[in-house]
Amino acid sequence: MSRYALGLDYGTNSCRSLLVNLDNGEELGSVVFLYPSGKAGILTDPGDPNVARQNPQDYLDGLVAIITGALNEAKQKDPDFSANEVIGLGIDTTGSTPLPVNKEGTPLSFLPEFADNLNAHVWLWKDHTAHTEAAAITEKASELRPEYLAKCGGIYSSEWWWSKLWRCKNCDPDVFAAAYSWVEHCDWLPAVLTGNDDPAIMKRSVCAAGHKAMYSEEWGGLPDEKFLSELDPALADLRDRLYDRADSSDVCAGHLTAEWASRLGLPEGIPVAVGAFDAHMGAVGSGVEAGTLVKILGTSTCDITVLPNSEELGDVPGVCGVVDGSVLPGHFGIEAGQSAVGDIFLWFVNHLVPDSYGATQDEKFIEMERRLSELKPGETGLMALDWNNGNRTILVDVQLSGLVLGQTLHTEAHEIYRALIEATAFGALTIVNRMEEYGVKIDRIVNTGGLAVKNASLMQIYADILGRPLRVASSDQTCALGAALFGAVSGGTVSLEEIQGNCCQLREVEYLPISENQEVYEELYQLYKKLHDGFGDIEGAAPIGRVMKDLIAIRQRQRS
Amino acid sequence: MSRYALGLDYGTNSCRSLLVNLDNGEELGSVVFLYPSGKAGILTDPGDPNVARQNPQDYLDGLVAIITGALNEAKQKDPDFSANEVIGLGIDTTGSTPLPVNKEGTPLSFLPEFADNLNAHVWLWKDHTAHTEAAAITEKASELRPEYLAKCGGIYSSEWWWSKLWRCKNCDPDVFAAAYSWVEHCDWLPAVLTGNDDPAIMKRSVCAAGHKAMYSEEWGGLPDEKFLSELDPALADLRDRLYDRADSSDVCAGHLTAEWASRLGLPEGIPVAVGAFDAHMGAVGSGVEAGTLVKILGTSTCDITVLPNSEELGDVPGVCGVVDGSVLPGHFGIEAGQSAVGDIFLWFVNHLVPDSYGATQDEKFIEMERRLSELKPGETGLMALDWNNGNRTILVDVQLSGLVLGQTLHTEAHEIYRALIEATAFGALTIVNRMEEYGVKIDRIVNTGGLAVKNASLMQIYADILGRPLRVASSDQTCALGAALFGAVSGGTVSLEEIQGNCCQLREVEYLPISENQEVYEELYQLYKKLHDGFGDIEGAAPIGRVMKDLIAIRQRQRS
Repeated sequence: MSRYALGLDYGTNSCRSLLVNLDNGEELGSVVFLYPSGKAGILTDPGDPNVARQNPQDYLDGLVAIITGALNEAKQKDPDFSANEVIGLGIDTTGSTPLPVNKEGTPLSFLPEFADNLNAHVWLWKDHTAHTEAAAITEKASELRPEYLAKCGGIYSSEWWWSKLWRCKNCDPDVFAAAYSWVEHCDWLPAVLTGNDDPAIMKRSVCAAGHKAMYSEEWGGLPDEKFLSELDPALADLRDRLYDRADSSDVCAGHLTAEWASRLGLPEGIPVAVGAFDAHMGAVGSGVEAGTLVKILGTSTCDITVLPNSEELGDVPGVCGVVDGSVLPGHFGIEAGQSAVGDIFLWFVNHLVPDSYGATQDEKFIEMERRLSELKPGETGLMALDWNNGNRTILVDVQLSGLVLGQTLHTEAHEIYRALIEATAFGALTIVNRMEEYGVKIDRIVNTGGLAVKNASLMQIYADILGRPLRVASSDQTCALGAALFGAVSGGTVSLEEIQGNCCQLREVEYLPISENQEVYEELYQLYKKLHDGFGDIEGAAPIGRVMKDLIAIRQRQRS
Repeated sequence: MSRYALGLDYGTNSCRSLLVNLDNGEELGSVVFLYPSGKAGILTDPGDPNVARQNPQDYLDGLVAIITGALNEAKQKDPDFSANEVIGLGIDTTGSTPLPVNKEGTPLSFLPEFADNLNAHVWLWKDHTAHTEAAAITEKASELRPEYLAKCGGIYSSEWWWSKLWRCKNCDPDVFAAAYSWVEHCDWLPAVLTGNDDPAIMKRSVCAAGHKAMYSEEWGGLPDEKFLSELDPALADLRDRLYDRADSSDVCAGHLTAEWASRLGLPEGIPVAVGAFDAHMGAVGSGVEAGTLVKILGTSTCDITVLPNSEELGDVPGVCGVVDGSVLPGHFGIEAGQSAVGDIFLWFVNHLVPDSYGATQDEKFIEMERRLSELKPGETGLMALDWNNGNRTILVDVQLSGLVLGQTLHTEAHEIYRALIEATAFGALTIVNRMEEYGVKIDRIVNTGGLAVKNASLMQIYADILGRPLRVASSDQTCALGAALFGAVSGGTVSLEEIQGNCCQLREVEYLPISENQEVYEELYQLYKKLHDGFGDIEGAAPIGRVMKDLIAIRQRQRS
């Protein structure tokens, strides 16, 4: 009899399942469900581009579709497969993506009185409405509890838990008052599946709690009441209705209820792991270990590595999360990221690329990639900043925005696309440099996510700019794979090391830096840094007066 | 019997004629001819985006087409019209747009051995290959002849005469050696029509010679031999084969030859005025006088005003030309400009606007204008610099480039188009401010050119940003009208004042600044200035760290 596990990966626009054979990594079933609500699953507000919410009903509808779908696929591929061979279920989601619930754990948006209220829905990770609150939390914590900030890179983000809860209190006190508790998306789904959705007993993820809810065992869990009441007494009141303890994903969140087992076609009572955020699970599914940086290249990007918690690790300024156990048990998880990468390319192709490149989004990407791959570094004369959705690492500032510079009267769309790719790579290099400066050694980089798999031009540019060989994880679904592995581990019968060794392989392709490109990019990176530091530092006065001329000089050299 | 004059306006992509009744301004005929060579009349080099050349044969082919066409139109409109009523012909062209000629005055590109050589063709105003030479001229002049630079804003441009001639010497010595002399496009056509194309006797335009060839009666004409030999002895050698004296356009360049009269259907012997650059003629055709700034809003923009030469006028740093007689006899002509305005919009619509806005360029412009006119100032959150073709005034630097800043993941094409329009208006305001700071008083602004006539949204944004009422000249063809007026005046029988009064009217429409828009734009202009000064000053360190945040704050305020 084989051993299988199911991993569920809840992304920004869709969720997907993966059914994996734990002995050989074979992937027997995988189904995607597009969230039906809003624009591609996101509830927006035309009056405020910072609003990004979701409908929790989409998550439940997706759950049934992707699990039953994966089991059906598996039976078609292998008639001998039986759902009884599934030994665990794990879930990852985006985050921090909290939702308000009542005392019974029911999402407020399921109640008729709040059904049409965006604030009663799920506050998606990329909701940026809470920047004022985030700034106030940063200010107060730097004054009163600098230790809180040290764990999250020195600046608390508007994307995170307390900013969002406080924002809700400020912008919609009725919803805040009706919320008995708040729950992360990654905690809510395991709780629902295991019948543990009473907020008082629900297991909470240390990965989610970690820096994003300022949770640490060092100071006894969540921020203390006194600190919270300095922000707003309402937050201090709420504290007791949240949680005292958070667990890593090797812990079992409960066992699948009979009702869900029957709806999903799974065995009753199988273990469901404590949830985690997508990138952390993706890092595990990509084989993260000490010395390995896993880059998850998607709509946004996460960079994850680990360090045994026996080693000394100082705070890393601007690196948003250093949390014990958030990725692997017994290790500090170290998390950084870029708030938009694929999202920038999607924005560009959908809003600024004429149909002469192709009739569809895919055709436009293909034609632009063909043409940009014929260019040498610097040949566009362009430089961009990758901040269309703010800068998560190392500036931790959502109030930054995009920039493209160097346009002439001849600049074409594929040249700007190349500049945008390069900007995201320069952003990635800035993160790697910062980690290394503070003693986190990086021996190899493993990439995963749609861009790593599909976009060879991008990967070569990344190798040239990062100046290191790049590998790609073998699974297309490393987040779901990591979730599946923890689903199995949470049952207590298998070890993570064993099944990670069985399931987490690398593809053959290796992107090697090309030395003449590397040299030009080293020069261009100095210009990127000038813009990065100039626009990124409120107090700064940047020596930007030569940037345009230097770009033209490099362009001339590269064209001739 | 009526009195008519013909004006010919040679633009960047086409030439056009205007046949005007000097007693009432009635425009009886006007025909456009698109230059057939190259891309829309411009010969380019795929290896160097700075190259922009033209084929002089296009000018001659156009001459016949637009004159005979206008006369035919006139006869159809008014059967009583007779070509014998045409009392003069005037011509304006782009500039500085020089061409190399042999001893007989024949363009080198007409000779078989140079027919395929781009360097033997016409060097169009917007050719930017000579930036190295321009910088060297600026350096040498600031050391040895600061008075030369003072007349042209402190920096000699790569668009101008000596930069281009020297560049030709440096990049193609054979062409330079074969050139007996060099001739401005605006001098060549009158010379050809009047049989005076021997370079030794050809009349030269003071408007063209003025600051662009560093000509001034103050120092005896062109730059002295010693200075030129410091640049390159070959330039000093050339000096004697150029000219000693230049004239304003009220002077007659000669009389139409029998051969041309017969080809064109005009009376033999009518006077042809000394040529001038398009903007100068356009200013006259728009009714320029002391206190009136004429803005010619086209692919690029020229800002022209005059001051009686009896008044004191110091040098105006960064304002590219102050030349006695270049616009009106007895007045200093003061010329500034932006190297690309309409060209930036054309670049944008052709390269970066998806077909969801419309199938054609016109449809895209119309839909973008509809949507951008619904936005309030600041609502885009964007800021651009209008430097895609460098900055002519007040930075005088072709090695600057475009910039767009403030993009989110929601930014749409019409928002960027609005930001580009605003950037050109901020550039225009910078010019007006600089003129006024140095004592050139501006009481009213009259606009002309395609954008002024067609784009009401742009004109309102300009009024809001310039903070002044804007009027539009009544003729669609003010450059050709100004040329026609000088054609008539050069015969010595009519006065410019009289026929300018008859022919140069304003349209009824008046764009008034809207005070709440003006206030927001005053705030936004401060951000524009930070970027302008930061990227425009090589040595500078600009306090740009708040620019993105300030834009977001203004956006939020304007949206709510």
